[in-house]
Amino acid sequence: MTLHIHGYSRSGNCLKIKWTAQKLGLPFEWTEVDVMTGGSRTPAFLAMNPAGQVPTVVLEDGRVLAQSNAVILHLADGSNLIPKDPYERAKMFEWLFWEQYSHEPYIAVARFHRLMLGKGPDEVEARIMERGEAALERLELQLSETPFLVGDHLSLADVALVAYTRVADEGGFDLARYPAIQAWVTRVEAALRITD
Amino acid sequence: MTLHIHGYSRSGNCLKIKWTAQKLGLPFEWTEVDVMTGGSRTPAFLAMNPAGQVPTVVLEDGRVLAQSNAVILHLADGSNLIPKDPYERAKMFEWLFWEQYSHEPYIAVARFHRLMLGKGPDEVEARIMERGEAALERLELQLSETPFLVGDHLSLADVALVAYTRVADEGGFDLARYPAIQAWVTRVEAALRITD
Repeated sequence: MTLHIHGYSRSGNCLKIKWTAQKLGLPFEWTEVDVMTGGSRTPAFLAMNPAGQVPTVVLEDGRVLAQSNAVILHLADGSNLIPKDPYERAKMFEWLFWEQYSHEPYIAVARFHRLMLGKGPDEVEARIMERGEAALERLELQLSETPFLVGDHLSLADVALVAYTRVADEGGFDLARYPAIQAWVTRVEAALRITD
Repeated sequence: MTLHIHGYSRSGNCLKIKWTAQKLGLPFEWTEVDVMTGGSRTPAFLAMNPAGQVPTVVLEDGRVLAQSNAVILHLADGSNLIPKDPYERAKMFEWLFWEQYSHEPYIAVARFHRLMLGKGPDEVEARIMERGEAALERLELQLSETPFLVGDHLSLADVALVAYTRVADEGGFDLARYPAIQAWVTRVEAALRITD
């Protein structure tokens, strides 16, 4: 069996997996799941993943795996997307957990409210926007010092963080205020050959 | 230098690191940081970790690491707390990311509102309680099938998830409704020699 990604193309969490597979030259199939119309809540989908979330991946041996960052760690095991140095690897993990706890719930959620739910700028909770700006400030600080999040090389930290950062504008964040982030987005998009 | 944990004893995220170090027989120092009175926002603390969050760990070589799950992964590297089998390891990661995204923001946050901020049961957002119950239901489902979260052995998934689950009652969740979780908490507490 070929690696099979059940994903939604507007979800950065799903795109992380596609980009990682492409970068590593892993063949995959993609089935589009429209989460906005209940596509991840059908009996067939829930039988595969009771959590009813995308991305859900069926590995080559038929076993199922969820959680975007867990999937990219699994696919990239042993590759140069995961630093060999133990401390650099730990810093990559620090960014991956920070992404899910302190970045995605604000940057991606603001975009969800604006783009998917059609809310206006004043209808997104101020707390979400404030914490989103704090997350961008932290990225800007790091990327003013290093070309990638962990030192001099592309790692899964960049793959995970670029997913929603590159479209943060769609959530009402002004990336023009963050020049180091903008340069890094361009760098990571080139490294991952992201063209859309 | 000895491993140095800057943590708050009522924070499950901090305790994860203490328990992991103890389980692995790693000597460590603990400095109590009272986050409720600004202890993680002092100039000295911010110089160590600009994010101003506990836990913050200073490794034996003086380098700093944050994010509880990143720290326990680093400390336990090569130990039997991380499954050797690639798929089991991936499932462990799935639980670790799920913990930070779908469990901690509800189970720990409800406890924070009740215990630290002194709110009454009706003052905690209904959404937080609903998602907390959903997280407990998912744990119950898994633990009805396997003794630990990943198969037959204790792993970091159990360390990370037990931290706030064992005190979920303090956030207004009734663990008596989840017998498999209760049995697992007892099992993991024994394995980690948690006595308080």
